[in-house]
Amino acid sequence: MGADLYKLTATEVLTKIRADEVSVEAYASSLLRRIEARDNAVQAWAYLDPAYVIEQAKALDTIPKSECGPLHGVAIAVKDVIFTRDMPTQFNSPIYTDHAPNVDAGSIMVLRQAGALILGKTTTTEFAATTIGPKTRNPHDSKRTPGGSSSGSGAAVGDFQAPIGLGTQTGGSTIRPGSYNGIYALKPTWNAITREGQKIYSLIFDTLGLYARSVDDLELLADAFMIFDDIPAPKAFSVKGAKFAILKTMVWPSVGAGTSAAIDKATSLLREHGAEVQEITLPDQLDDLPAWHATVLASEGRTAFLPEYAVAKDKISQQLVGHVENSDKISRKAQVEAFDKISAARPVVDEIFSKYDAVITPSVPDEAPLGIEKTGSAAFCLIWTALHTPVVNVPGFKGENGMPIGLSLVAPRYHDRRLLAVSKKVGEIFEKEGGWTRSV
Amino acid sequence: MGADLYKLTATEVLTKIRADEVSVEAYASSLLRRIEARDNAVQAWAYLDPAYVIEQAKALDTIPKSECGPLHGVAIAVKDVIFTRDMPTQFNSPIYTDHAPNVDAGSIMVLRQAGALILGKTTTTEFAATTIGPKTRNPHDSKRTPGGSSSGSGAAVGDFQAPIGLGTQTGGSTIRPGSYNGIYALKPTWNAITREGQKIYSLIFDTLGLYARSVDDLELLADAFMIFDDIPAPKAFSVKGAKFAILKTMVWPSVGAGTSAAIDKATSLLREHGAEVQEITLPDQLDDLPAWHATVLASEGRTAFLPEYAVAKDKISQQLVGHVENSDKISRKAQVEAFDKISAARPVVDEIFSKYDAVITPSVPDEAPLGIEKTGSAAFCLIWTALHTPVVNVPGFKGENGMPIGLSLVAPRYHDRRLLAVSKKVGEIFEKEGGWTRSV
Repeated sequence: MGADLYKLTATEVLTKIRADEVSVEAYASSLLRRIEARDNAVQAWAYLDPAYVIEQAKALDTIPKSECGPLHGVAIAVKDVIFTRDMPTQFNSPIYTDHAPNVDAGSIMVLRQAGALILGKTTTTEFAATTIGPKTRNPHDSKRTPGGSSSGSGAAVGDFQAPIGLGTQTGGSTIRPGSYNGIYALKPTWNAITREGQKIYSLIFDTLGLYARSVDDLELLADAFMIFDDIPAPKAFSVKGAKFAILKTMVWPSVGAGTSAAIDKATSLLREHGAEVQEITLPDQLDDLPAWHATVLASEGRTAFLPEYAVAKDKISQQLVGHVENSDKISRKAQVEAFDKISAARPVVDEIFSKYDAVITPSVPDEAPLGIEKTGSAAFCLIWTALHTPVVNVPGFKGENGMPIGLSLVAPRYHDRRLLAVSKKVGEIFEKEGGWTRSV
Repeated sequence: MGADLYKLTATEVLTKIRADEVSVEAYASSLLRRIEARDNAVQAWAYLDPAYVIEQAKALDTIPKSECGPLHGVAIAVKDVIFTRDMPTQFNSPIYTDHAPNVDAGSIMVLRQAGALILGKTTTTEFAATTIGPKTRNPHDSKRTPGGSSSGSGAAVGDFQAPIGLGTQTGGSTIRPGSYNGIYALKPTWNAITREGQKIYSLIFDTLGLYARSVDDLELLADAFMIFDDIPAPKAFSVKGAKFAILKTMVWPSVGAGTSAAIDKATSLLREHGAEVQEITLPDQLDDLPAWHATVLASEGRTAFLPEYAVAKDKISQQLVGHVENSDKISRKAQVEAFDKISAARPVVDEIFSKYDAVITPSVPDEAPLGIEKTGSAAFCLIWTALHTPVVNVPGFKGENGMPIGLSLVAPRYHDRRLLAVSKKVGEIFEKEGGWTRSV
């Protein structure tokens, strides 16, 4: 039995630990064995010290039951752009090799206090800012990318090496690996979770992201981070009688066969289950959202990477040098116009989305592409990052090569908990009838 | 001569160091003697290690002339909410006593790389978030507050203990101490300087701020941080023929006699020097800007202080506990509405302000109040923090008790360099004819 503990979700393992059926140490050992068996194929970790993990697990096992936190013993994989006081944070940058500041990010403080076990640091693209893949491979096909920039956290959770992972998203860095690795991913409303101690690319876009293999687990984390809507989410949302929108967006021309089929299949499934599904479009004046995102991203990157540029510009990638040197010659006027137009779009989109239980839209153009050099396209994700809306990637579909494909469920800002409640019921349908099944 | 080096501005001391007239060590020694003589009265420092300062100064003196950076030897006082790899960062919070993560904030990386000498850490209110004063006293009257939250940096620069100081501003934390201590202060356009490694209160408001006793010094820093407008600022702006606006704002009823007189005096002086000065008002629909600021501040504080609340809620002040527990019962709807209304106001105000060389408005209600328990009112500053506009506090006036009073010069976003050029010429007039003179 102990050998299979790694397969459990966080919610499941919590129940067993609370019931004294398993120790944190036994659970951690199971995960470490899984990692050992699979690391050569997946390579999700930038830093992992098995002896230290066991030491931490043993320490958690000594805590009296009455003092155990709500995440007691839950193992978490942390993207290597988030500070951990006891492990290096290296940003996949040669400037920061062995960089180990003895400070926890705000998110890590909250998780540790809740009793979580920080497993190790997962791979990322350079500063979570480029699309050049790290060493990590897709657990479902090692010839394919796990996506990025949260490559390692996505792959680790998809491969049962950790039940929970922390990612970040500035374009599509949480949702895209969510889709590619066949797992649930939550990009919460912007600034609903503190970004303290998480490397900055764009202040107005960067968002901490969460991975899990069940919506229950995402809800567990949302509780820990005290993410609450104005109106508590329904205890048991019903797809029957619900109202969904399908939104193909202005970047639909970049869609592939797999995602296109997934959208059709999702529409049929929801209708079969008694929901109303209608296709909607965004107002034409929002067609330039991707261009505005690109303008703000480059402009805010100009500020964000000046320190590294000043210290060692020969050690940062050309994209980041370009941001600092403003190689796209983006004027300040264009920068503030793009910033303001996105700002103005937020309440407009919230209003439209408030009419539906969720808006369903692609997470990615298609299944994970071949090769690990590039982490894929963020085209479908970056709109929602810019708009600050919560997004859940719900897995369940598959592409032409049998790889997982997820769809994004989107809601107005600060409707994160309702969106999770909706995603849970929609996920049950997609996972059961969508055509792709997670297997160890 | 060496004994008086502490009186110099950064620009002046740079010239002497470059000409080999003084060593960094001699300059640092002079500052340390000044600090020693004055520390009992002012108490600006949260951390200062004189031996380490001298060690760093000596190291800078060994650098070959050809490799010296643009801020070589310039001493900088750093607010104790900004990470420094070689000194503690304690946030004036008992949770962080002796907290010393070995990491530099992005701003510190840039300054060190440019050759700056980090002198020490200056006092702050708790997390730069409350208005409960630290131990620091106003250098011009030790019975009065130096303002806050950048209390120590404002007082240190005002007292010639450092030529340059780093502050932060979320409400009025940079500009208010600028006025109270009789120095120049720049709150740049939001996100024009990286906030990496600077404690978060409100992501959308927090801004790194700069102190100096001359505009030349602020320009030196603006160069180091690569803050550039679309159109380069005029080499020699002329007040004669220039166009200024006086803006009393919706919070004018809170003005005191000193600031009211300063506004009148400024108007007369600029007119005498050949400028056109007209009073303007903001559109009525912006009257609630202070309320929107308060709503967003509390809501973003709810996210920002969850980590400290989770770890030790008995060790953070009631204001911050209130943010996390949402004691004001601010709904998410109210939060996003306030966020969006401020967003919509930004281009409106930029457009109005673009018609003037600068908009002149109070920095504070009046001179620094008696007592060090409270750091004063941010009422006049927080509007500009919310609107992301650059602000320069220009000193030169005095209150009924002879304390310094400054006025704010404000410009549209990303017109920081032009605003500095204008502030330089306006400052020459205010400092010479405004009535308050800085003295050691």
